[in-house]
Amino acid sequence: MSNLPLASRTTDLVGSVIDSSTSLLAKQRHDIVRFAMGSPAPEAIPAQLLHGIADEQLARSDAFDYAATEGDPALREALLGILAETGERTTPERLLITAGGMQGLDLACKLFVDPGDLVVVESPTYTNGSATALSYQAELLEAPVDDDGMQVDRLVELVERAGRVPKAIYAISTFQNPSGASMSLARREQLLELTRRWGSVLIDDDPYGMLRFAGADTPSLLALADGDPLVFGVRTFSKIIAPGLRVGWVDADPSLQQLLINAKQAMDTCTNLPMQRLIAGFLAGGHLGEHLTVQRAAYGERKRAMQDALTEHFGDTARWTDPEGGFFLWVTFGAQIDTEALFEVALAEGVAFIPGNAFSPSKLFPNALRLCFASSTPERIREGVARLRRAVDRLTGPS
Amino acid sequence: MSNLPLASRTTDLVGSVIDSSTSLLAKQRHDIVRFAMGSPAPEAIPAQLLHGIADEQLARSDAFDYAATEGDPALREALLGILAETGERTTPERLLITAGGMQGLDLACKLFVDPGDLVVVESPTYTNGSATALSYQAELLEAPVDDDGMQVDRLVELVERAGRVPKAIYAISTFQNPSGASMSLARREQLLELTRRWGSVLIDDDPYGMLRFAGADTPSLLALADGDPLVFGVRTFSKIIAPGLRVGWVDADPSLQQLLINAKQAMDTCTNLPMQRLIAGFLAGGHLGEHLTVQRAAYGERKRAMQDALTEHFGDTARWTDPEGGFFLWVTFGAQIDTEALFEVALAEGVAFIPGNAFSPSKLFPNALRLCFASSTPERIREGVARLRRAVDRLTGPS
Repeated sequence: MSNLPLASRTTDLVGSVIDSSTSLLAKQRHDIVRFAMGSPAPEAIPAQLLHGIADEQLARSDAFDYAATEGDPALREALLGILAETGERTTPERLLITAGGMQGLDLACKLFVDPGDLVVVESPTYTNGSATALSYQAELLEAPVDDDGMQVDRLVELVERAGRVPKAIYAISTFQNPSGASMSLARREQLLELTRRWGSVLIDDDPYGMLRFAGADTPSLLALADGDPLVFGVRTFSKIIAPGLRVGWVDADPSLQQLLINAKQAMDTCTNLPMQRLIAGFLAGGHLGEHLTVQRAAYGERKRAMQDALTEHFGDTARWTDPEGGFFLWVTFGAQIDTEALFEVALAEGVAFIPGNAFSPSKLFPNALRLCFASSTPERIREGVARLRRAVDRLTGPS
Repeated sequence: MSNLPLASRTTDLVGSVIDSSTSLLAKQRHDIVRFAMGSPAPEAIPAQLLHGIADEQLARSDAFDYAATEGDPALREALLGILAETGERTTPERLLITAGGMQGLDLACKLFVDPGDLVVVESPTYTNGSATALSYQAELLEAPVDDDGMQVDRLVELVERAGRVPKAIYAISTFQNPSGASMSLARREQLLELTRRWGSVLIDDDPYGMLRFAGADTPSLLALADGDPLVFGVRTFSKIIAPGLRVGWVDADPSLQQLLINAKQAMDTCTNLPMQRLIAGFLAGGHLGEHLTVQRAAYGERKRAMQDALTEHFGDTARWTDPEGGFFLWVTFGAQIDTEALFEVALAEGVAFIPGNAFSPSKLFPNALRLCFASSTPERIREGVARLRRAVDRLTGPS
């Protein structure tokens, strides 16, 4: 490789521990409890419905042709209809269909991040989100998260200390990945105010917002921004319908639409048409509402099962977050537990998770880990947490 | 938009005339003859087969889950089997499944192109290919193409004049888009020799190589390179099966595989799984061989129909290429014909094409245009060329 004329940014291309853990998983026992990947439960994916819709949609003569870069008209129309019933009512000029939320982040960085630019990320944050900013050679500033989301006061101090304002702020404000925390309304308003003062772009990534199972709704940053061009909304069907579809959307200022189309054409031409048609059929058929109702109830039950099991096995030795929606719990052990060391022991015990350091570019969480409660039944969750306890005992105890 | 903190590269994001012509098309008469888009004919897409395979594949419980970033094992295995029967036999360590050939180009630029780097493109070249290099702020050097493909001797002169060697060379060596020309074997070997001497990366984009309908096979640059790490192969199922699937692959040095996975995770996580499964089923079912046999014959017939119609209507006033495969003819008129001006007149007459300047960053082909013969039946091709003649007469004549 030393002979290859690599670009300077290639040293900033970081791999995801999620992927390597998946490869590791494949080599382990088959009954492993999977708390690692942020996937919906297999039974939460409306596969039978999608299969039926595919039977109809894929029979159309143009089903396998190129799609328009901004998205298939049928999906755009169905999505606009769905959003009109939410706080995120939007217009065609703001909408671009993407290859999942990840491409929304790639587009945001493509449009806004120059090498060396300061980009704020939450700490902890979504691994592939910070990886995207790094792939554009951003300099990352980690803003700590507590139970009320990003600590915006701390952000102000950190920016003062950095001596320059951030070009972009990357926030997962609702049911944050990986912490599960949601930003309070006061902090959201404060963050929007800072965004305007600094002239930064606020990348509002919200994959889980429709999956609330407790507490009262808080308006998203995008909704609060009320058309402010500085707020760039990134959304996805991955968590609410299915991740393998690779379909999401961007809701951004109309002045950006042609730039987004140009950038996307140079990335993948268009998003795959058959999956756009499947989702259009699913939405137009009125299935989303009931689907979400069922999933929310199931995810709430799973979260409680996981918290109960954690109390039983780790009540005295760890603490964890209390999310009101989404997929994740964030568990923090005492300083003596190295969760990267724990990872392989846990795999051998039959349970997978993601070590905390994967969610921090400067590896600030060596004794924390992320657990996904969404993918496993309550029974499997209890079994998985018991296995995690055995793994911790093996790692720390002399027994 | 002036208030938005755009990155410096956004000024280099160029739109594709293909897209705007499509939007224009939507507003025109419905019976328009479509020589513009580089799509397979609707009847050339094995929609019924794919529909049947979907019925089986999409019923699997994991059909809508995340795929491995390097590609679904079933597709990787089926593809390795197909390639083993060609001059492009390869290994798992070299293979990455992508969101179409376009993402292969995006990945190549991500890995190799720094802002200001010199990148050679053919002249004329594929619009979205040069757009991708520009989106990484490359400086483009246009190497002229004749009936034997890129004029490699001229490239040597141009590089000498530029005073520095190119970081990357982007070549569509077989049935080139837009010219239809194929690079001679001697030029291929000369180009590989230059690539090694300069230490450049040779991006070998070959969407049409399997669609030869005349003449003898020439080994691809990738095949001739025989594992040289400097050659980066970009391939796609878009033209040989269907473009809406958005599935292609990269064949690159094994030392690049982890970097490619890292880069792709920060672009779209993985390629959509259902379409990977459809193609895996199509390949494993042994359908590709017969499908290509039928398509090659049809495309050959269409090319001849287009050439015959051009001879009838423009025998004395234009010249055009004679491709042995692929989708495109390149037509050059006398200097008095401005094909951008012709474009709207032609749309009004009921025929669409892409003006020549769309294929040259410095707009070197004002009196040329690209015609796609693949998407229309011979009868429609005759009608379309007759309409083109009427459009030229309207543009130039006083009648």
